[in-house]
Amino acid sequence: TSPAGLTAYVAVSQLLGLTVLVATGAWLGRYRGGVAWQGSLQFNIHPLCMVLGMVFLQGDALLVYRVFRHEAKRSTKALHALLHGLALLIALLLSAGIVAVFESHRREGKPDMYSLHSWCGMVAFVLYLLQWLLGCGFFLFPGASFSLRSRYKPQHVFFGIALFAFSIAVCLLGITEMLLFNIRDSYSHFVPEGILANILGVLLVAFGLVTGYVLTRDDWKRPPLAEELALSMDFKTLTEGESPGGGS
Amino acid sequence: TSPAGLTAYVAVSQLLGLTVLVATGAWLGRYRGGVAWQGSLQFNIHPLCMVLGMVFLQGDALLVYRVFRHEAKRSTKALHALLHGLALLIALLLSAGIVAVFESHRREGKPDMYSLHSWCGMVAFVLYLLQWLLGCGFFLFPGASFSLRSRYKPQHVFFGIALFAFSIAVCLLGITEMLLFNIRDSYSHFVPEGILANILGVLLVAFGLVTGYVLTRDDWKRPPLAEELALSMDFKTLTEGESPGGGS
Repeated sequence: TSPAGLTAYVAVSQLLGLTVLVATGAWLGRYRGGVAWQGSLQFNIHPLCMVLGMVFLQGDALLVYRVFRHEAKRSTKALHALLHGLALLIALLLSAGIVAVFESHRREGKPDMYSLHSWCGMVAFVLYLLQWLLGCGFFLFPGASFSLRSRYKPQHVFFGIALFAFSIAVCLLGITEMLLFNIRDSYSHFVPEGILANILGVLLVAFGLVTGYVLTRDDWKRPPLAEELALSMDFKTLTEGESPGGGS
Repeated sequence: TSPAGLTAYVAVSQLLGLTVLVATGAWLGRYRGGVAWQGSLQFNIHPLCMVLGMVFLQGDALLVYRVFRHEAKRSTKALHALLHGLALLIALLLSAGIVAVFESHRREGKPDMYSLHSWCGMVAFVLYLLQWLLGCGFFLFPGASFSLRSRYKPQHVFFGIALFAFSIAVCLLGITEMLLFNIRDSYSHFVPEGILANILGVLLVAFGLVTGYVLTRDDWKRPPLAEELALSMDFKTLTEGESPGGGS
């Protein structure tokens, strides 16, 4: 069975994640005219899909090893890669390239990629794509040796969590930009839109915090299944003392 | 001796930290009229001192255990608490309360605490103060038992790193706010001030990333000194099997 605390924290993280999605939708729907595939509301696809892909799906992809702790590593790994792939697809196709931001900038004659949000967002996206490709290369394709995987794994985990945190920071920048572009003068009068968007920002941080806690708590680490343990024992015997747990 | 990689990464982190301070100063000095204790330039104390306190000093306070790995735990702990205390003092006295932000808002008749930056900044500061008080209570005063300390330590470490990352995110929000208030129209034309401030943002993220890497890499953990090991062995014998490494 799973540790009791783990289940509770994961439940809270999911509740926060869904609340974040709802709050984003409420903000766009109530104050920004909603979302549409065409026309002036196309831009709004960007915040919605980025929160869905780069925060919610990315966060949940990180959680799968600890949540599905008694499933075979193979299937958990596939789910991990799939969720990240889906997040990337939503971020790239829907939110950045084909549909939302660049398209809406072009229509309105606005320049691209000048703000800190756009710089950080682009860095986050490119590194996330790279991390996914490296992850597939090291852990999904059968070519990489056990020892290579063991050495890359701690790096993969660190950068995965760092990128997740960074993605949330980029969302906060996006919220601030959008508020200062749209309600610059009334923002300081505590109008409902400003308060709702601020709350959305705080909720994003809370989602990141709870998810990060679940991901890094030592005693919630996925225990190796019996057959994995046997395999790694064999490997240890073969290589005389190299540990498969990472941290060479 | 210290692990070779550790020294290099710490050097890079310090170089990045100093570059961040210089870039902040350059931005304020070159484009925002400089910094002054009185008058309209008083506000500029805020970004300078927040970057110094809540980023540079906070980050370096986190690093001391791994950098001064062969010093007695007692002195390292005192340095850790001192640097955090200094960071808090700079953030509270110079940057927020007595001098910069609230004072300059009052003079200009601007409202306080309406933006996402201010909300997140206040949350970060209050949690940071709380974390410091809890840290002093658990680890500096002799009252707390060894077992209580061991149980609190992983929480302290997680929240310490999370708060450091959050503080950097709050700085990025502040940069974005300041740019959109001051150079809203020219920002999109890639003016030098906008580019410098964006680079400052990216440097802040790089400082956080390198520092975070040094802090979380398993094999760079501070090894217990011989006398600490002996103490914890005694303790283990006394309590039959409880580990002092945390993660109960």
